[in-house]
Amino acid sequence: MKISMHSMSVGLFVPMLGNLAEILDKAVASATNRKFDPAVLAGARLAPDMHPLTRQVQLACDFAKNSAARLAGVEAPKFEDNETTVPELQARIAKTLDYLQTLPTSAIDGQEDRDITIPIRDRKLEMKGLPFLQRWMLPNFFFHLVTAYDILRHNGVDIGKRDYLGRS
Amino acid sequence: MKISMHSMSVGLFVPMLGNLAEILDKAVASATNRKFDPAVLAGARLAPDMHPLTRQVQLACDFAKNSAARLAGVEAPKFEDNETTVPELQARIAKTLDYLQTLPTSAIDGQEDRDITIPIRDRKLEMKGLPFLQRWMLPNFFFHLVTAYDILRHNGVDIGKRDYLGRS
Repeated sequence: MKISMHSMSVGLFVPMLGNLAEILDKAVASATNRKFDPAVLAGARLAPDMHPLTRQVQLACDFAKNSAARLAGVEAPKFEDNETTVPELQARIAKTLDYLQTLPTSAIDGQEDRDITIPIRDRKLEMKGLPFLQRWMLPNFFFHLVTAYDILRHNGVDIGKRDYLGRS
Repeated sequence: MKISMHSMSVGLFVPMLGNLAEILDKAVASATNRKFDPAVLAGARLAPDMHPLTRQVQLACDFAKNSAARLAGVEAPKFEDNETTVPELQARIAKTLDYLQTLPTSAIDGQEDRDITIPIRDRKLEMKGLPFLQRWMLPNFFFHLVTAYDILRHNGVDIGKRDYLGRS
């Protein structure tokens, strides 16, 4: 085995997004047990000026999809950000996983030196493929993934780090 | 540039822990401005059965230190978990950064196939170096790092994703 750009991006996003899907199943079960609409959890947030669960899941998916596409030098499909329920978030994750699996390993491996341009509001961030993976893709992906977990945990959903890590 | 086990472990932990230290500075400033003891933040948590900020920071440090040492095939120093204040947590981060910088790049690079054993309570998890990095080190490190951020953000500390990502 040799470490590669693909194994440390798509190879990591795919299992972690799969774990997120299972965590969302537990969120629905928890809401149903506690007799409230699971959509309440979809709108939950940790602070008034932080994104709710829906947006955290959309962003985790988009950092995986868009940044893997940038590494591969292709244009990622744009998904509308119109999810408001947990089943819709599950569908978003499934679409993201489907897309990630269309990117050939060979299109991402060896892209350490690719010039990457990230449009951020009114400016552009430019970096090479390796620092992009190390300092942008992974920190951003995990930021939204863990915050999604933390929102659910804060709202009493019975999940633990084992759910987050999955059956590795 | 070529991706390597060191660049995706120590090369990522060092800047992210540096960002965490700056976030903790902002937490102290926020508490001081709002006229409460910053130690209140050190004890804050997102759920009654989740670890407080102190433990999240200790664990982010330990996942970086212990797992990098395991990859390098050396025994990491054990740090006592006795921090109760933010300055003590800053010292813990500084000690961790010092230790990470003692690990030679060459001791971690090329360790994709090393047999890793992780003692977890009553059992042992065994995996090779690459899946250990991909499915254990990074997910666990980010779990505690982002949860530390989320605890502070939930408690009104004026930080944003820019602080978490740092000046990359």
